[in-house]
This record gives sequence, C-alpha cells and structure tokens, in this order.
Amino acid sequence: MLYFIGLGLGDAKYITVKGLEIVRQCSRVYLEDYTSILWYPFSVVGAYFGVLNAKKKKNQFNLPRATTHSDLVLRALNAGIQYHVVHNASIMNAVGCCGLQVRIKLQSNVVILRIFVVSIVFWTDTWRPESFYDKIKKNRDMGPHTLCLLDIKVKEQSMKNLMRGRNIYEPPRYMTFAQAAEQLLEILQNQRDRGEELAMTQDTVCVGLAQIRAEVQTIHSGTLQELMSCDLGGPLHSMIISGHLHSLEVDMLKLFSGPEGLKTLKMTDSSTYVS
Amino acid sequence: MLYFIGLGLGDAKYITVKGLEIVRQCSRVYLEDYTSILWYPFSVVGAYFGVLNAKKKKNQFNLPRATTHSDLVLRALNAGIQYHVVHNASIMNAVGCCGLQVRIKLQSNVVILRIFVVSIVFWTDTWRPESFYDKIKKNRDMGPHTLCLLDIKVKEQSMKNLMRGRNIYEPPRYMTFAQAAEQLLEILQNQRDRGEELAMTQDTVCVGLAQIRAEVQTIHSGTLQELMSCDLGGPLHSMIISGHLHSLEVDMLKLFSGPEGLKTLKMTDSSTYVS
Repeated sequence: MLYFIGLGLGDAKYITVKGLEIVRQCSRVYLEDYTSILWYPFSVVGAYFGVLNAKKKKNQFNLPRATTHSDLVLRALNAGIQYHVVHNASIMNAVGCCGLQVRIKLQSNVVILRIFVVSIVFWTDTWRPESFYDKIKKNRDMGPHTLCLLDIKVKEQSMKNLMRGRNIYEPPRYMTFAQAAEQLLEILQNQRDRGEELAMTQDTVCVGLAQIRAEVQTIHSGTLQELMSCDLGGPLHSMIISGHLHSLEVDMLKLFSGPEGLKTLKMTDSSTYVS
Repeated sequence: MLYFIGLGLGDAKYITVKGLEIVRQCSRVYLEDYTSILWYPFSVVGAYFGVLNAKKKKNQFNLPRATTHSDLVLRALNAGIQYHVVHNASIMNAVGCCGLQVRIKLQSNVVILRIFVVSIVFWTDTWRPESFYDKIKKNRDMGPHTLCLLDIKVKEQSMKNLMRGRNIYEPPRYMTFAQAAEQLLEILQNQRDRGEELAMTQDTVCVGLAQIRAEVQTIHSGTLQELMSCDLGGPLHSMIISGHLHSLEVDMLKLFSGPEGLKTLKMTDSSTYVS
C-alpha cells in the first residue's frame, strides 16, 4: 500500500492523527518537498514522526510538478500497489483565513466559487508573459477574487550549466509579493500604453499573505501600492486581488490593514474598490 | 482565545495533532455541524477528544451558512476575544483524489485553476432556478471542470409550521447525484426546446463522489446517464462535470469507471468528451 499523507500547513504537528498513525506503521517514508517548502528540518520531522534512521535523499523521481501525485498513483497501480490518500489543508482553502470568501451564497441561492487562481511566473529578460493578467481581468469582470500563487524556482540550472551537462543548481528563489506587484504594474502600464481599459490599478484592494500556516503567518490588506512596501517576511508569499467585496469581507479585511488602511474604502464600480 | 479547528474529512482521528492538543486544553468545545455533516456521534468525538461531559447543544447562533466563520470571528473580536485558525482538508481540495486536476501547468507556464464550483439547489414545484447551468456552460467553454456541490436542507420548517410559529423541523435532506442529474437533464431539455446550443449532454463525462473521507469514499466516473443509476451510497454526494481533459486525467478517471466505462472515450470538440 502506498499512502499519500497531507502534512498540512504548519510544523510537524499539523499532520492528522490518522496520518501520523499510518506514518508510524510504514516501512518506508518519503518526504515530498518538491511542490512546496518543508517548514522544518527533515531530522526534526523524522524524529517526531518516529521514523528511525530518517535520511534526506535527493528527489528520485522525475515528475512534472503540477501532476506529481497523479503520476505517482498511476505508477504505483501499474506496479500492482494500491494507494490511499489522507487529506489535509492546502493554500487553496486556507486562504479563507484572510476573510475573503472562498464560497459565498448569493441571492439567487446559487453558491459560486469566489476565489479563482492564477500563478505569476518569474519574468526573464526575454520572456515576459502577460497571460495571467487576462485571467485577472476576466475574474474582476465577473466578480470573484483572484488568488495569485507566486513562482517557485527550485533545482533550476543556469543555461551554461545545462548546456555543459553539469548538475549544478541555482539557489532556490521564491517570488515575493513586491516582485509580483512590479510585474503586474508593468503589464498595467503596457495596457495603458495600448489604450486598453484597465482591470485594476495600483489603488486596487489586495491582500498579501505569507507563510499561511500556524503561528507565524502574515496577512496584510491594502492597496497594491501600499502592500509593495509592506514587509511580509519569508516565503511563500501569495497575493489576492479583490473582486466584488461583500460587507462582511470588508470588515474582515480591515482586521489586516494598517491603522489608516481601508478606512476610506470606496467602490468606484462593480469590481473596483479603491482606498 | 477562540480557536477554529478544522475536523478534516474522516472520523475523529482526522483532526490534526495540533488541533487535538488545543481541543484538550480548551475549557469549552463547540462542535459545528451546521455547514456539513458530522460523521460520528457527538459522544464518540467528545470521548476521543477527551472533552468531559460533552453534550450536544442546539445551535445557539443564528448565522448565515456561507459566512458562519467570518461572522464568528468578527463577533469574537468585537467582544475582545482573539482567535486562531487550525486548518484542515475540505471538499474544495480533496476532490483532487478523483484524479481531475485542481490546478494544472499549461504550456504557457501559467497555472490556472482547473475546477470551478457551483451548487445545485433542490427545486420545488414553483422554484426551479437554472442559473447554475449558465455557470457550467461558461466553464465548459473555457476548459475547467465544474465541481457541483449538492444541496443540504437541515433545520428546514414546512410552510405550515413556519406560519404557525411551530419549531418543528423537517427531516434533513441531502441531494443525491441522481437527483442533481435529473434536474440537469430537465434544464438541458429546456435549452434544447429553446434551440440553444448545449453545453453538455447525457453522454458527457462526469464523476460522482460520495463521502469523500477516509475508508468509505465512493468515486465513479462515466457518462452523466451511466452515473445516474450508480449506487454512490450515503450522503454527501458531489458531481464533477468534466471540462478539457488531460491524458493523465483520463488515465486517472479510468481507475473509477466500470469495466467498459471510458474505454471508448472520444473527444467531440475541445470541451466535450463522450463515452
């Protein structure tokens, strides 16, 4: 049996009781740090989980990041090994802690998802995709908030090392809120130059989130511009660009704003709130 | 301090280790069974959590379901009480276990959410909203899958009892996959009668999910028509209507189809796969 056990968002104690029981009975335990950051040293988690002789091995699988777990499921089944999933929290639902509704009940009694997700990737000198902006624009037109997951670069090789076949990797990079905001503002300037109607401005209400997990998490709300100079602390950062705001959501956002922030929140049109 | 502690998807052991530690130190524990079903008797969870003299009290809050937790946060803070959230899994991310991608990496290197969510509500004789169908149509046009959360009716009063002010509640009702599919097929027939282009048919590939939690969960994939006669077991049921399918997703879906199901999966256009 191959178990997939969610580690949750926090230290080693954010595993479920059930998950921990299973880990302690397993003959082999792999810690997956390829699709996220592990927040604690491998030795600590190994000791807590009661995994004797825990050793950090290099990633032995060559997997596409977004489909890592499906790929492992299919490989296991092909090898005649059954699998079982023990779920846990992920950023996809935990962002609700900032007070923006992941789901909301509308008057028509139809519940719709209130947060859609895009990823913002690191630009290079020659590769500056703007496609995520189109998605943000669509969302703001329709109403939902946009959760922007920010790029992670781990185990990346420089072009030089890649061409020379040297397995030397660049230090990991995690996109900050400010870096994402800079790219976004550049796209907005490009849109402005082309005479396009803008989906948002530097005054649009956003939320900056960092290390959404126990104890240390940081949440700031304010305008995009304000948040660019906020210290959110270490990675991973996320950005939420607000869509239509419910009054209860505004009340929640105020919990995370500066002393003056969001006091003067004004709705300029159905999908634009400026402070 | 007011703690919000996710119970996860399973029995009492699907709480996190951290959550359990906190529960055991609390002077008062409330079990919230208003926004979902608790899968185990209150006395069992009370005993497991080590909560002495656990009693099931009636819901003492008058809360809108979709904003329950935000409302409690704000009330607590207004009363000078701090709060803390310990996250856990929810259906919003756990549906990934059927193999449809909640997120996927596209060629343009922009990751977009692959599952959007609507709720399907119980129709009455006089109230038969079709608005969720429009959302499904939009999703299928764009590509994402649609997760349909099915209606829950708890603590509902009959019109007669409501008018007479009698606090007598109807037995709880949980919409089944088959009930949702019937409503959907009726809408499709209405659309056909109006000469509209259909977003899906009875042959569209869907997934039926029931009790997505430990041990007992049921997942079936197949056409909408096929799944209507599948026994998914007890509530809660969910329905996923496929959008664009990745080959890895098709491989995963085949794990949950009947012996003949999905063998002859054909793509009829960019967002229609029929079996």
